[in-house]
Amino acid sequence: MAETLEDIGEFGLISRIAKTVYTSSNLALDFRDDAALWQQGSGWLIATTDAVVEDVDFRLNTFSWEDIGWKALAVNLSDIAAMGGTPRGAFVTLCLPATCETAAVSAFYRGMSLLAEETDTPILGGDLSASAQLVANVAVIGEVESSERVLKRKAAQVGDQIAVTGVLGSAAAGLALLERGDSGDTPHGARFMAAQRRPAPRLREGRALVDMGVRCGMDVSDGLSADLKKLCLASDVAAELKLGSIPTDASLGTVFGDSFRERAIGGGEDFELLFTAPPAVMNTVEAWLSSNSLAPCTVIGAIVPGPHGAVVVRDVHGRVVPVSNEGFDHFGTAAAPLSGN
Amino acid sequence: MAETLEDIGEFGLISRIAKTVYTSSNLALDFRDDAALWQQGSGWLIATTDAVVEDVDFRLNTFSWEDIGWKALAVNLSDIAAMGGTPRGAFVTLCLPATCETAAVSAFYRGMSLLAEETDTPILGGDLSASAQLVANVAVIGEVESSERVLKRKAAQVGDQIAVTGVLGSAAAGLALLERGDSGDTPHGARFMAAQRRPAPRLREGRALVDMGVRCGMDVSDGLSADLKKLCLASDVAAELKLGSIPTDASLGTVFGDSFRERAIGGGEDFELLFTAPPAVMNTVEAWLSSNSLAPCTVIGAIVPGPHGAVVVRDVHGRVVPVSNEGFDHFGTAAAPLSGN
Repeated sequence: MAETLEDIGEFGLISRIAKTVYTSSNLALDFRDDAALWQQGSGWLIATTDAVVEDVDFRLNTFSWEDIGWKALAVNLSDIAAMGGTPRGAFVTLCLPATCETAAVSAFYRGMSLLAEETDTPILGGDLSASAQLVANVAVIGEVESSERVLKRKAAQVGDQIAVTGVLGSAAAGLALLERGDSGDTPHGARFMAAQRRPAPRLREGRALVDMGVRCGMDVSDGLSADLKKLCLASDVAAELKLGSIPTDASLGTVFGDSFRERAIGGGEDFELLFTAPPAVMNTVEAWLSSNSLAPCTVIGAIVPGPHGAVVVRDVHGRVVPVSNEGFDHFGTAAAPLSGN
Repeated sequence: MAETLEDIGEFGLISRIAKTVYTSSNLALDFRDDAALWQQGSGWLIATTDAVVEDVDFRLNTFSWEDIGWKALAVNLSDIAAMGGTPRGAFVTLCLPATCETAAVSAFYRGMSLLAEETDTPILGGDLSASAQLVANVAVIGEVESSERVLKRKAAQVGDQIAVTGVLGSAAAGLALLERGDSGDTPHGARFMAAQRRPAPRLREGRALVDMGVRCGMDVSDGLSADLKKLCLASDVAAELKLGSIPTDASLGTVFGDSFRERAIGGGEDFELLFTAPPAVMNTVEAWLSSNSLAPCTVIGAIVPGPHGAVVVRDVHGRVVPVSNEGFDHFGTAAAPLSGN
């Protein structure tokens, strides 16, 4: 039988494409970082593109059209944040059935515009097409000050501490509640659903990290363990995480039970920043973020020598905790029906 | 009953979105030109995005995966050509079922890379997602020398001549042949199918036009009459076309019969450049294009005073020829199943 995408998965496919496609030697980063980075005239541009697809990334019975518009832009802005960059404009393609109500389309752009205005990301253009399935694709162009003042996946070094902004697992909890038809009428239920439907890209935090000397980072979109593995592979290092340090919402256990920290490590779509830095830099970062009304960060582990790309999670007794680092694969046979960006 | 997209159509929807979306006062052009244009540092960037959708823009039984990859990039490069710009990079989102063969995806990127290399448009990034229906979205970033050295829709002036590059109607003829299951084993059949499957964006021609002083232009994607109407609306002028001057392939009549010129005026997806200029400039352009191995251009009419946006077509006797200028509307009730970009 001929090989299909299920056989090699999303990341196997990306590796193949990266090897064969016509690209540029001017690209300052690997094809697989959060965004492309290249020099344009006297400046440095970054750009990224991401689609959200009906019944893959959202369902019409649990997301409003405002939510879909917000999230389609948010997942892209998170990639800009993951570079420590500033967004300059968004291009939006909306494919949808002609039978859709115009009020729904207006709501889509209203939700997107809310986030666009909040992050000063003007919508500069777009495309509309008919389709059977709703697909919203966004491309965002941004800039960074230089090719050095940027967060890269490949810059982790042994001895670095590993940290994340905010809390992990809330978006996965929100998805779990939505999928089980929860009404979301508790304060934590509402928080989790908001984390799933209207994630807040960490743009100001990303720029602050770069300003304070952090050079290695990415966003957590496919799940902490899977994304940290990618960072370690890109940097040719390994990592150890402390399970007890993983920051979560105080109520995460009400959704996931006793293993809520393991679920926080595996769950996707947090859109928090994952970054590494030497301890001295990390101390400055922790103090600065918490005193400037930005999302706080938490040190969760360290970059260590060891098998290329290996991520080990340990409990308080030093025992290894089994955690999947497969993350979300759009074409993997193990792919959950809804997650990952 | 609630208003749907069928009621207001693609262009009604674009007008509404343009009025309500969060955008930028730095945009040097109307939201509805071929591409966005804005200053970035010391340079001027342009960018555009366009999707091709299975069973809307192509069918899998009449397009190879190479064709789809080529065309997804070509329709975007045509918008860059329509500004007289130079492409600097493309971002590609491919949404497709996990059951697709990896060989098909490789063919998609191979077809796209052929055109990317030919036009020196590096593929800088992208996204992959699962979906039921195949959707390929491309965003292209390019540049122009300044906000004045560019082809705009709104720059036509009374007294300008109107011209198009190449021939019109070939892509529509190719579509007609493909839809009727033609084998394409005649020379003209093969030409028409190639025009439909692998259109050649007029990048060099667009830059040459700008170099020679042309300032008004767009690409012919929805059909000459519909696109010229948009140009006239943007410029607040009217236009007269001479039916007998419309350039077509010598064999177009074998597909469309005696009314082949009317069909050439109405047919979409030519991806030729439509532009206007004063007669003195136009003379230079005609001579230069034909002596430099670029696509030739043909003068087909003139910009005239008159009802805002009106496009009149006259035969050799000066009689008005009825031609639809509705063009392709993705959501219009009159939308053909396949056409337009």
